[in-house]
Amino acid sequence: MTADRPTFVTHLECSLTGERYEADRLHGLSAAGRPLLVRYDLEAAGKAVTREAIAARPTDLWRWRELLPVRNTADIVSLGEIETPLVPIPEAGAANVIVKDEGRLPTGSFKARGLVMAVAMARALGVTRIAMPTNGNAGAALAAYATRCGIETIVFCPEDTPEINVREIAMQGARVWRVNGLIDDCGAIVAEGAKQGRWFDFSTLKEPYRIEGKKTMGLELAAQLGWRLPRAIFYPTGGGTGLIGMWKAFAELEALGWIGPERPKMFAVQADGCAPIVKAFDDGVNHAERWENAHTIAAGIRVPRAVGDFLILAAVRESGGKALAVSDAEIARAVDDAARKDGLLLCPEGGATLAAYRRALAEGLIGAEDSAVLFNCATGLKYPMPAADNALDRTRPIDFDLL
Amino acid sequence: MTADRPTFVTHLECSLTGERYEADRLHGLSAAGRPLLVRYDLEAAGKAVTREAIAARPTDLWRWRELLPVRNTADIVSLGEIETPLVPIPEAGAANVIVKDEGRLPTGSFKARGLVMAVAMARALGVTRIAMPTNGNAGAALAAYATRCGIETIVFCPEDTPEINVREIAMQGARVWRVNGLIDDCGAIVAEGAKQGRWFDFSTLKEPYRIEGKKTMGLELAAQLGWRLPRAIFYPTGGGTGLIGMWKAFAELEALGWIGPERPKMFAVQADGCAPIVKAFDDGVNHAERWENAHTIAAGIRVPRAVGDFLILAAVRESGGKALAVSDAEIARAVDDAARKDGLLLCPEGGATLAAYRRALAEGLIGAEDSAVLFNCATGLKYPMPAADNALDRTRPIDFDLL
Repeated sequence: MTADRPTFVTHLECSLTGERYEADRLHGLSAAGRPLLVRYDLEAAGKAVTREAIAARPTDLWRWRELLPVRNTADIVSLGEIETPLVPIPEAGAANVIVKDEGRLPTGSFKARGLVMAVAMARALGVTRIAMPTNGNAGAALAAYATRCGIETIVFCPEDTPEINVREIAMQGARVWRVNGLIDDCGAIVAEGAKQGRWFDFSTLKEPYRIEGKKTMGLELAAQLGWRLPRAIFYPTGGGTGLIGMWKAFAELEALGWIGPERPKMFAVQADGCAPIVKAFDDGVNHAERWENAHTIAAGIRVPRAVGDFLILAAVRESGGKALAVSDAEIARAVDDAARKDGLLLCPEGGATLAAYRRALAEGLIGAEDSAVLFNCATGLKYPMPAADNALDRTRPIDFDLL
Repeated sequence: MTADRPTFVTHLECSLTGERYEADRLHGLSAAGRPLLVRYDLEAAGKAVTREAIAARPTDLWRWRELLPVRNTADIVSLGEIETPLVPIPEAGAANVIVKDEGRLPTGSFKARGLVMAVAMARALGVTRIAMPTNGNAGAALAAYATRCGIETIVFCPEDTPEINVREIAMQGARVWRVNGLIDDCGAIVAEGAKQGRWFDFSTLKEPYRIEGKKTMGLELAAQLGWRLPRAIFYPTGGGTGLIGMWKAFAELEALGWIGPERPKMFAVQADGCAPIVKAFDDGVNHAERWENAHTIAAGIRVPRAVGDFLILAAVRESGGKALAVSDAEIARAVDDAARKDGLLLCPEGGATLAAYRRALAEGLIGAEDSAVLFNCATGLKYPMPAADNALDRTRPIDFDLL
């Protein structure tokens, strides 16, 4: 594949066995049925670009191009992937706690990071039809980017997926089906269609490039904090692409010599009603069992089985962090507190990270002075809010004391 | 007022009479009942900062501090006011048409720009209680920022304000009342309460600082386009603060020597069902009459009467632009086209700018090669979308040909 910009991808490799795969070919999972990771010639990349050069570029996701797989500018599809802001959250009850507000990305969630990269690579590799299972936000991001570059998309979501997600997926040009099941049931349909050659399977971690897009969360965070990572990261964990991606980003930054060997404690946050990674973490095993009867108000982390489970668990353990589950009541309270006290409207999954932070602080897993970053993965505007029904009749005398 | 950062406000002046008012005092409208404009010592500001210095700062709204009124860092209230991205919109049917996507700001709309500044100044000037009439987004931005710095807020909105807006206002800590009337009816209640000394009136242009926040749209645009302004700007116009603000920003940038005398044609976009500025423009008068029985799906521009009407009209005329009204059907079609073809989910008011652009192009008001910027003032996620109701039963054999 010819390149009009300096890129440094050397090959892909199986995340379980290390088996090597050729770059610039269409790949799904490895022969071992596990995610493929993109590898770069980081020595060459480090000669081609400096931290200062990155800092001088426009602050969007594409500033990281030497660490991304897209080789040709013409394949880039973009809706404005800005660097998301860091917002202090006093309600956390400790100094140095900030929210990385991923809801500012196109389609209102961090899914845009993974999908913009995966769609650009699908376009580069000639894919014309994509299918995906989704709990909502990933499907919306896929639809927007694929539509924008003329790729056909079919999206399957659990039947109780929020109405707004189903509608935005359809509105942005995809065909969307509600399925009587959970996300892995939807995934089975996508897999069957892919086997029949009807479409390319864009399930979490089943193609190699979403993780490359998601890793930009880690790259951005390092740059925003002056190339010093926080002491702790709280990350809402469904499929875990972002956590795996950030861990990979930190390794690449260290290989470049841009950060040292220190790492944040990685906290994988799940819900009591769907906590397969937490159970595997507590059981000391490397793979998680499917979680039966999964339920939580935080639909984005209602993922009963994650194909990258062992990668999530390895990163959390290596970091000295922990997998934590919080209750729906704790999530709801955290969302409410952040909005009513800090003016910050989190999504439920973002609320889960605040709840988990409070737990970690109370249990002494981190100190009150430790810097911590909570990932708010989507705009709170996509989620239900309580009614507010005060009516005032202007045609009658108004009692201002009551307002 | 002591300052811990270099600021250059010299005074305020009446936008109609030029009468001078003291800075760093609490002001509403001028004695003539018209908006006050903040004036700066631009010669001193130009010695204190350069375009290059601005470019080297973090890319948020506060990078423009020498052109903003906040004198003390401690008064800044922030939820992450990022520089909004410019996104090409091929569906416009001409090259060089881009959308400035203001939906990425805190609370999902450009109202954040004005309110973050007004709330910071209210805080600096000791205000503890604020009231405001709103069609939705301004109230949400006020609630979030005021809550964040402990200022009490009471918000009045028309009874048919979208549910999501009413809820987010309440969720973010404000008291919110639905009123049986339009936004100027709500404004009358706010004015009466202010007269009684119950609160400070934060109505559009009735305090001097929202316009200073909104003008950052013009400052950003200039910087993002390499200090060359586009040939045309299409701006959805209700109260018109942003249009007035951008026009002021361009004058300040020229006084600094950062841009030349060229200006974009300013197109003030309204809806057929509420077009007071269009009527005044067409009639060749300087003030607009109240528009009776106002109605449009674009609630943000359903403003029957604008206190800054003469400023809007002056800017549009001076620029060689025009005030244009589009129908609700054109707005809906534009929103639909942008989503289904470009993956870009506009708000109705943003859709109105696309519809107006198409009209201006068809009527030869601008050329197909002219650069144009459309303002999408809020995230499309806040607005109703058509239902998408395809259901798939996974317990039965799936006919993949039908998907």
